[in-house]
Amino acid sequence: MRTHERVLAQIEDKLRTGEWSLGERLPGERALAEQMGVSRPSVREAVRVLEAMGIVRTAVGSGPDAGATVVDRPAAGLGAAVRLHVASGTLPVSDVVATRAALETWAVGQAAARFDVETDLTEAQRLLDEMTAPGLTAAEFVALDQQFHLTLVQLAGNQLVEAILGGLRTAIGHYVTAGVERIESWDALCATLCREHQGILAAVVEGDAVGAERLAHDHIWGFYEQTGLASEFS
Amino acid sequence: MRTHERVLAQIEDKLRTGEWSLGERLPGERALAEQMGVSRPSVREAVRVLEAMGIVRTAVGSGPDAGATVVDRPAAGLGAAVRLHVASGTLPVSDVVATRAALETWAVGQAAARFDVETDLTEAQRLLDEMTAPGLTAAEFVALDQQFHLTLVQLAGNQLVEAILGGLRTAIGHYVTAGVERIESWDALCATLCREHQGILAAVVEGDAVGAERLAHDHIWGFYEQTGLASEFS
Repeated sequence: MRTHERVLAQIEDKLRTGEWSLGERLPGERALAEQMGVSRPSVREAVRVLEAMGIVRTAVGSGPDAGATVVDRPAAGLGAAVRLHVASGTLPVSDVVATRAALETWAVGQAAARFDVETDLTEAQRLLDEMTAPGLTAAEFVALDQQFHLTLVQLAGNQLVEAILGGLRTAIGHYVTAGVERIESWDALCATLCREHQGILAAVVEGDAVGAERLAHDHIWGFYEQTGLASEFS
Repeated sequence: MRTHERVLAQIEDKLRTGEWSLGERLPGERALAEQMGVSRPSVREAVRVLEAMGIVRTAVGSGPDAGATVVDRPAAGLGAAVRLHVASGTLPVSDVVATRAALETWAVGQAAARFDVETDLTEAQRLLDEMTAPGLTAAEFVALDQQFHLTLVQLAGNQLVEAILGGLRTAIGHYVTAGVERIESWDALCATLCREHQGILAAVVEGDAVGAERLAHDHIWGFYEQTGLASEFS
């Protein structure tokens, strides 16, 4: 094990045992290096890895001895990892679609099962309205569409599913945009997608988990098939 | 954006455009620093992040100018990210169980749908046999159990689902072990789990996707309920 990996393993231990906890400010670089008996560059390398994974945050502009703060943003870390892997081109698009479909299908079913009068749908409804605004460009639509899907997923209340799907956001946006650009009759597709979104939301509100799952599944796979992405990528 | 983040963004671009591709050896630290107009420590920090995420590998023992090789092991990178987040303690166990159940349920259904005479079940069968060996400790059982589940998931042929579940491996092992340790009649539970595993595999072999999905769902959630984990953690 190399030095920065040993430092990472020690930090992981401190997080696991609760010696360091959420919101806590860690010792500065110099103090950590002394505690762990390693060089300051090795400490910095380990802290950079933790930052990229969304485990700690270092304040911009503050020196290395200000100390990193333990945060917990799984979405950030998973997001960066998935983004880099999709960028390197070895992750097939169909794998991204299938993973997304499996998790979102579960999430909307869960959202329907948990739905009650307290559930706040203002944001979901606002996004649906904006998506039907006339003159929307495809890029604007895709951005709103992604926001709508993540809002639905949040209703399921599962941090890990949210983090994974948040992490897949760029990869999903990429294939959705490619699909939208291929289609000849954007207006017709846009109308179909809006209708499907409304159907999914209505099923959630009715507490119809099975219906919401089926509609979400058909919505995600239907787009992939209808835009011709399925034949291009398989 | 800080220097090492700028370096990361530049590397991501080179991966996306295919300027750097899988299996390729990148320029050494010094050359990269010159190309990008940054310091060598900044390059090294970015390379450490890429290593932790399973995007590149640097040979142990070789100097910084030997260059990192582009590999693609999403499982390694996602795994490290999820492991660190679970270690920091903010990810609820029920979120891990639900995420696992959603992805594994999809995966066994897919495995059943794809099953044909070419599918190699030697490893899955070997693991099932070993799990029924007399005198197995709970820890030995849990290790075999995890291997069996990942082997089933591999039959679905989705790299991303595999990577995410591989990444959750430690977190899953942790709660399964906690459940096993709570149970009074380990022999009875062990027999039930073995029977359920056989049932899932049989459904896959019969190409019964719906049946395989239902059995996997019941197996994962049933364990969580029966061992009392559900009441402890909710």
